[in-house]
Amino acid sequence: MRPIQPRIRLFLSAKRQFSCSHHRREIRSVSELPDRIIPRYQESLHNDLLCLQWPSPPRNVFFIKKENVPAVTDAVIEFSKHVHSSYPSTAMIFENKVASEIHDRLPFPVYTSAADRDTATLELQPKVDLTVTLGGDGTILHAASLFSATNSVPPVLSFSMGTLGFLGEWKYHEYKRAFREVYMSGSGPGDRCAQLTPEKMDESSGAGSVSPEWSSLRGKFMGEARPARVLLRNRLKVGVFDSAGHRINASSDGNLAPKIGGDIHAMNEVIIHRGQDPHLAVVEIFICGRLLTEAVADGIIISTPTGSTAYSLSSGGSIIHPLVPSLLLTPICPRSLSFRPLVVPSSMNITLRISDKNRGRGLELSVDGVRRNHGVDIGTEIHVRGEQLRCRDGVFTSGIPSIVRGTHSTGATGDDGWVGGLNGLLKFNYPFGEA
Amino acid sequence: MRPIQPRIRLFLSAKRQFSCSHHRREIRSVSELPDRIIPRYQESLHNDLLCLQWPSPPRNVFFIKKENVPAVTDAVIEFSKHVHSSYPSTAMIFENKVASEIHDRLPFPVYTSAADRDTATLELQPKVDLTVTLGGDGTILHAASLFSATNSVPPVLSFSMGTLGFLGEWKYHEYKRAFREVYMSGSGPGDRCAQLTPEKMDESSGAGSVSPEWSSLRGKFMGEARPARVLLRNRLKVGVFDSAGHRINASSDGNLAPKIGGDIHAMNEVIIHRGQDPHLAVVEIFICGRLLTEAVADGIIISTPTGSTAYSLSSGGSIIHPLVPSLLLTPICPRSLSFRPLVVPSSMNITLRISDKNRGRGLELSVDGVRRNHGVDIGTEIHVRGEQLRCRDGVFTSGIPSIVRGTHSTGATGDDGWVGGLNGLLKFNYPFGEA
Amino acid sequence: MRPIQPRIRLFLSAKRQFSCSHHRREIRSVSELPDRIIPRYQESLHNDLLCLQWPSPPRNVFFIKKENVPAVTDAVIEFSKHVHSSYPSTAMIFENKVASEIHDRLPFPVYTSAADRDTATLELQPKVDLTVTLGGDGTILHAASLFSATNSVPPVLSFSMGTLGFLGEWKYHEYKRAFREVYMSGSGPGDRCAQLTPEKMDESSGAGSVSPEWSSLRGKFMGEARPARVLLRNRLKVGVFDSAGHRINASSDGNLAPKIGGDIHAMNEVIIHRGQDPHLAVVEIFICGRLLTEAVADGIIISTPTGSTAYSLSSGGSIIHPLVPSLLLTPICPRSLSFRPLVVPSSMNITLRISDKNRGRGLELSVDGVRRNHGVDIGTEIHVRGEQLRCRDGVFTSGIPSIVRGTHSTGATGDDGWVGGLNGLLKFNYPFGEA
Amino acid sequence: MRPIQPRIRLFLSAKRQFSCSHHRREIRSVSELPDRIIPRYQESLHNDLLCLQWPSPPRNVFFIKKENVPAVTDAVIEFSKHVHSSYPSTAMIFENKVASEIHDRLPFPVYTSAADRDTATLELQPKVDLTVTLGGDGTILHAASLFSATNSVPPVLSFSMGTLGFLGEWKYHEYKRAFREVYMSGSGPGDRCAQLTPEKMDESSGAGSVSPEWSSLRGKFMGEARPARVLLRNRLKVGVFDSAGHRINASSDGNLAPKIGGDIHAMNEVIIHRGQDPHLAVVEIFICGRLLTEAVADGIIISTPTGSTAYSLSSGGSIIHPLVPSLLLTPICPRSLSFRPLVVPSSMNITLRISDKNRGRGLELSVDGVRRNHGVDIGTEIHVRGEQLRCRDGVFTSGIPSIVRGTHSTGATGDDGWVGGLNGLLKFNYPFGEA
Ligand SMILES: NC(=O)C1=CN([C@@H]2O[C@H](COP(=O)(O)OP(=O)(O)OC[C@H]3O[C@@H](n4cnc5c(N)ncnc54)[C@H](O)[C@@H]3O)[C@@H](O)[C@H]2O)C=CC1
Ligand SMILES: NC(=O)C1=CN([C@@H]2O[C@H](COP(=O)(O)OP(=O)(O)OC[C@H]3O[C@@H](n4cnc5c(N)ncnc54)[C@H](O)[C@@H]3O)[C@@H](O)[C@H]2O)C=CC1
Ligand SMILES: NC(=O)C1=CN([C@@H]2O[C@H](COP(=O)(O)OP(=O)(O)OC[C@H]3O[C@@H](n4cnc5c(N)ncnc54)[C@H](O)[C@@H]3O)[C@@H](O)[C@H]2O)C=CC1
Ligand SMILES: NC(=O)C1=CN([C@@H]2O[C@H](COP(=O)(O)OP(=O)(O)OC[C@H]3O[C@@H](n4cnc5c(N)ncnc54)[C@H](O)[C@@H]3O)[C@@H](O)[C@H]2O)C=CC1
Repeated sequence: MRPIQPRIRLFLSAKRQFSCSHHRREIRSVSELPDRIIPRYQESLHNDLLCLQWPSPPRNVFFIKKENVPAVTDAVIEFSKHVHSSYPSTAMIFENKVASEIHDRLPFPVYTSAADRDTATLELQPKVDLTVTLGGDGTILHAASLFSATNSVPPVLSFSMGTLGFLGEWKYHEYKRAFREVYMSGSGPGDRCAQLTPEKMDESSGAGSVSPEWSSLRGKFMGEARPARVLLRNRLKVGVFDSAGHRINASSDGNLAPKIGGDIHAMNEVIIHRGQDPHLAVVEIFICGRLLTEAVADGIIISTPTGSTAYSLSSGGSIIHPLVPSLLLTPICPRSLSFRPLVVPSSMNITLRISDKNRGRGLELSVDGVRRNHGVDIGTEIHVRGEQLRCRDGVFTSGIPSIVRGTHSTGATGDDGWVGGLNGLLKFNYPFGEA
Repeated sequence: MRPIQPRIRLFLSAKRQFSCSHHRREIRSVSELPDRIIPRYQESLHNDLLCLQWPSPPRNVFFIKKENVPAVTDAVIEFSKHVHSSYPSTAMIFENKVASEIHDRLPFPVYTSAADRDTATLELQPKVDLTVTLGGDGTILHAASLFSATNSVPPVLSFSMGTLGFLGEWKYHEYKRAFREVYMSGSGPGDRCAQLTPEKMDESSGAGSVSPEWSSLRGKFMGEARPARVLLRNRLKVGVFDSAGHRINASSDGNLAPKIGGDIHAMNEVIIHRGQDPHLAVVEIFICGRLLTEAVADGIIISTPTGSTAYSLSSGGSIIHPLVPSLLLTPICPRSLSFRPLVVPSSMNITLRISDKNRGRGLELSVDGVRRNHGVDIGTEIHVRGEQLRCRDGVFTSGIPSIVRGTHSTGATGDDGWVGGLNGLLKFNYPFGEA
Repeated sequence: MRPIQPRIRLFLSAKRQFSCSHHRREIRSVSELPDRIIPRYQESLHNDLLCLQWPSPPRNVFFIKKENVPAVTDAVIEFSKHVHSSYPSTAMIFENKVASEIHDRLPFPVYTSAADRDTATLELQPKVDLTVTLGGDGTILHAASLFSATNSVPPVLSFSMGTLGFLGEWKYHEYKRAFREVYMSGSGPGDRCAQLTPEKMDESSGAGSVSPEWSSLRGKFMGEARPARVLLRNRLKVGVFDSAGHRINASSDGNLAPKIGGDIHAMNEVIIHRGQDPHLAVVEIFICGRLLTEAVADGIIISTPTGSTAYSLSSGGSIIHPLVPSLLLTPICPRSLSFRPLVVPSSMNITLRISDKNRGRGLELSVDGVRRNHGVDIGTEIHVRGEQLRCRDGVFTSGIPSIVRGTHSTGATGDDGWVGGLNGLLKFNYPFGEA
Repeated sequence: MRPIQPRIRLFLSAKRQFSCSHHRREIRSVSELPDRIIPRYQESLHNDLLCLQWPSPPRNVFFIKKENVPAVTDAVIEFSKHVHSSYPSTAMIFENKVASEIHDRLPFPVYTSAADRDTATLELQPKVDLTVTLGGDGTILHAASLFSATNSVPPVLSFSMGTLGFLGEWKYHEYKRAFREVYMSGSGPGDRCAQLTPEKMDESSGAGSVSPEWSSLRGKFMGEARPARVLLRNRLKVGVFDSAGHRINASSDGNLAPKIGGDIHAMNEVIIHRGQDPHLAVVEIFICGRLLTEAVADGIIISTPTGSTAYSLSSGGSIIHPLVPSLLLTPICPRSLSFRPLVVPSSMNITLRISDKNRGRGLELSVDGVRRNHGVDIGTEIHVRGEQLRCRDGVFTSGIPSIVRGTHSTGATGDDGWVGGLNGLLKFNYPFGEA
């Protein structure tokens, strides 16, 4: 058994204080919390966004923040205090390191998981109802990585701090309204979610018996709640196999795949790159088992549509709307005049094989910007396919449910913010001439 | 009423000869034929291709050929003679001009429609069971254009003559095998189409009662028939509206929209272009009603995935597999450093509006390479959205069902030929170095 | 002989009024003016710009303005009035149409050329000392086209009106300073032009004998004059030959080449394009007589470095600094994955040949945005090579000498404004993130 | 002082054997050889290639070969034997490691330099008359790197072994003819080099007194010698400075700059890259001291026109003919939609500064594919400018004089092989359709 780490010990001692009369400044284990509540995502008539519908109010809120930025730390404290006081039955979860950093600035107990990443992943998955991120796109990618081994990711509410990112939907100052919208979503008949299926909402969500948390809040906030709208971002499923065809699992120090085995999920992309080796990489690419080509290049990107505005964009890929069920294959600096980026259905398998022509060296594998280069040697195969949106009776159980920020003024509830992001953030088709 | 054109007259006189004893060299009206047989397209387990299933054998075969190439004319004669003799209950349909050109070289009556394009369209749609094209991609596009006003396009079997095209699947010398495969498809229990839904095939296709045409052929050809595999190519739906919001219909001389009104369908793309005007075009682009950008460019392409290897490719667009349900927006020579091609879900509407900044002139509109520039003035709006694949009980009623050529040797029945086309035809990622 | 056109007649009658006592509102012939003064362009030590050096003050100023914009007309009137009153020995030349439009708003006689373009060209070349343009890039291109048949183009001082262009250096409100800088350039020993060759300036410019116009102005303006800095923009030389190898000269109605015969010069580019024909153009490209490739495309651009930020940029070409002695070959929407833009030395000949594969139709030829499509049929050859900078004893006799706007504050006299234009106008590498 | 390495020792002992009667299998020091003969490069009338003119026959031939390929080793032995027997007054020089490897397979003494790279560089520069490379482009780059600290590089005759490279002009089987052409070049009046300057060749090359080596060979080879044609490839000059502005010289273990100090020259390019760090690099780019932009990217390439077909091509740069005097600035995967490759005159300085925004880490610097990352930390500046072609009286003293392979059959002596390379090697504009 692995030695207990300092932070875990702190947490254990906190646990021992249970009988104490004052709960504040405590760090508790996330395992003490009730299991997560699985929300439904209802299709709506007029657009491709889904309506978030909690069967009962969310209870376990997981805050993830950007590291080493004091202003973000202050924000997460302010935010969690607000949630604690306005929604008293919610519990606040933080990453282990963050819990240690901030728990004594909070007047209520905080929950955390093990410091060890794999264990944390196992502990968090069954508990988290809602993830809140404060930071940039990197923070959201990090949050996604903590759920990279599960199909059922809790909804993510993300706030950009400082520079606005492309994935982060909300501005921090909107946090009260945003949280309320998510918390109340699906709480009652007033929801304006025009449903595709005319089935009775009441029944499906426990007719009539609106939870007391919701009813009490109803009174407080005037007006009806608008349901939170969700963009289901599909991920990649990535499996790594050695030349003998065996799945490469993580050793204690590696992080190629979670201990649990199986595929890892990527929100943006998986990349094979020459890394610091100044020589070209050689990668064989197969689509549905058929050899497409042998790429001689700096690297190869397999990206989700979400990732089409990340590395793939820099490498010349097209911009793909996140709801196009597809995989992008974009080369990085290919040594060819005729390697055009490809887009295939997300149902097709793409395999990257590290060619024997790489003169003995391995290549670098990274997922969502994090290097995972344990064992990516010659002959190694990376198997990639798109996560399939599985929808049974309106319950989608895949993808990353990202809460979309509405443009209230216009009432254009179908607006998924994508066009706005292209113009505002990417300076898409920025016109010539003096500003 | 419009005057009867020479060719129509020929046809009318042919009609009068009905009582004659010898039927050969006749030209008859397609309207005399029985109504078309609607096939089913069955999903299969292992791939994204569909299995063609005729409830009973096809009867009305429509041959379309490239113009002005004697070798192609010879081929269409040879081909139709073969069909006539091997599948005696089939009728051969040709375009009006072609019927006049070749009927006296054929020992059986041929069928045709009116010379007038709009009338032809109306006459052909309810009759054609199967379209066979001989020529290049342009011939297929032309065939598609004849069904551009209907949702339910008959399956297309296309042979490349001379230079191999990207859309044309079959080589001419395979015509006997290809036709037989299509004709027999779905004829019996031997079909190797692993079905997704375990429902009894027999029932759905009229249990037990295999049609006599099929049974007699069964004997002749040894071995079981492999079902024809179909790639359902989604089209664009294009509507043109004047600045007052009225749909622009075709006048007698124009061809903006079929007389029947409603949208036209495009297999490759719809394009707005500056044409011969040496000045830049200005086009406003809206996605789902929201202004994306004002494009200053040579033109704008809205393309299907099928069209991604056509004009869009030349303009820098990515290559999209035909089964990704999407629309491509690719600029032609945009006056901006930051106009990257976009790909959106096929369910989203894209509107192109001819901006007032075009200094009074109109722009050129073309659909699948054919100019349709009647009335594309300032303020005109082109509304485009993707055809939605509609599937009810295994009957898809949209898209262009294109018969895919199999690679028999490998038995890889899931191979849709796309990867092969990239390598063989587009010279995708063609390696450096002396051949 | 061609009939005298209305405007010419006006001009002739103006001529008859010579004996009249009041010269104002007159339109005189440019042929009455003294011959132009050829300036020298001196290389300087620290940068690639040249110093303009008049042997004696310029006298004949040619104003060219954008058409149909009242504000620009007002500006040209204000500007020419200023020049008339501050530099009394200068004469104002306008294009024929403009002269008619504005002469009665000016209190002094104006000069003009024939309305007929070819004749105008012949008349203007020997007379114009300095061209001043007011408008956009199109106005500068038009000015250049009037000198497209000569090697020795007078310096161009260009002001942008309204939207800032990439070629137009100066803002209109700077007109007084700009004109003075150009007028005085090379007038005396105070010039800060660090010369490469240490030869005595006094001798070369007529030692000691500073012209009276200059001396009188010296007193007026305090401080020493800074010499005007010149960017010599190299042009293309374009010859059009029929399939028999004969140079195609302009008929009376065409404008392929000036009547004078010989090559025409292009400032931006020469383009072969499919025009309104929806089918691909086929063009054979030769470099130094050797077949490079057969291009199947919308068109082909041969551009100067100056034109690299015009159409070539939209077609994917790199941005080339105007002083790189080169020609760009950029395809427009080529039907190939592997047609990368090329840059060759300006000394190399490029020939475009309209291929026989164009199915009988001709293609469109345009030079600097103006169509010149008389006779560009199958077999026609377009011969292009770069204008060679000829420099003998510091006298450059080629290129378009464009007066560059200095950044006075920084004193960076070597700054040619190119980097500023990339950032300010083209939004080069515009950063992501909310503005 | 550094310990004598094994190979040097071998060489020293070889030296001691000088008095021995048999010279074979010896390894001697290159310093014993006579000083190199500086050839002239004469401009010719009809093209941009230069004519190589030896004042007297070359004596010291430096063979460089690809490592670890037995066939290449065999070739170099065969080749040097041929030179030894046919041109008896020549001496064969090899790299230290190669000399040890092959000297005992050669029946004559070989010359070499110190094993230490910096010392080797110092020893070779004053001695080598002609460099012969056998291998690929990498071998030529390596050869160039050995002369990267000098302006005056001896001519390079390069043979491709196996895969044909873009820089390597000759096929190995042509080695006899090729060597003879180079050896005899400028040997007499029969040279067909049409000279630009009509000065007497005889005088300049020592009138009348044709060297005995040449006269004896004249007899042997029938026919007149054609002069070798030279493509002068311009290089980059690269200086690396720390944030305090001090030039960073090489420590004993680094290789940033030769011990001799001063700039290093690059044949292809200099690159700043994020290397294995998965985060974007931030680099400030200055042109002529003016801030162009802050690049956020994988890296930045500053390339010669020669290097335009190397990494820059893969990163989207245009293809530039090697004789265009320019520098290319090509970004690698820039995080911007509007970073287009730039081309500036080779006389302009480009400075890359490692921005403070790189979060503390350094970046990777590489020159011609070799990493030289000692000290490329935040604040480090890379100063780059193009080597200026210096020509005084027909003696060019800069660039890499590369012997061009002629196409004898055509007699097109002006053909520099560039167009052929685009088509044959890069598959430029490779046409669609089945091969
Ligand atoms: N040359 C390039 O463009 C490179 C891009 N990356 C991208 O960075 C990602 C990792 O992000 P960080 O850890 O923050 O690394 P980072 O600190 O290097 O920043 C990456 C940048 O990409 C942006 N970004 C991330 N995902 C995005 C998305 N889906 N759409 C639009 N922009 C997005 C971020 O806002 C940030 O500006 C990787 O998944 C990869 O896509 C990584 C290396 C090089
Ligand atoms: N610069 C360009 O690339 C241009 C392309 N076109 C394309 O041509 C099409 C019309 O075809 P034609 O009447 O035969 O005109 P065409 O005779 O000008 O030939 C167009 C070429 O495109 C090919 N093509 C057509 N559809 C394709 C597809 N989906 N994928 C790959 N290649 C395809 C054809 O094989 C042919 O080589 C238009 O729909 C448009 O996409 C039209 C004009 C310019
Ligand atoms: N798709 C495109 O980018 C097209 C570009 N053009 C360009 O337009 C030029 C003719 O100009 P106009 O008569 O004003 O036509 P125009 O009214 O269509 O405007 C052309 C645009 O190009 C700009 N421009 C012209 N020369 C430039 C240069 N050297 N660098 C940067 N920008 C430049 C002008 O400022 C204007 O914005 C042609 O020489 C051609 O280069 C012409 C047609 C299409
Ligand atoms: N993604 C890419 O395209 C990369 C390219 N390189 C290039 O490789 C060069 C170093 O060459 P090696 O040591 O052989 O590395 P290498 O073994 O990685 O091969 C580089 C390839 O580039 C080719 N090459 C080199 N110089 C060329 C030129 N001027 N024009 C056309 N092709 C050229 C070579 O033939 C070889 O195929 C670097 O100078 C850099 O330009 C290096 C890393 C990545």
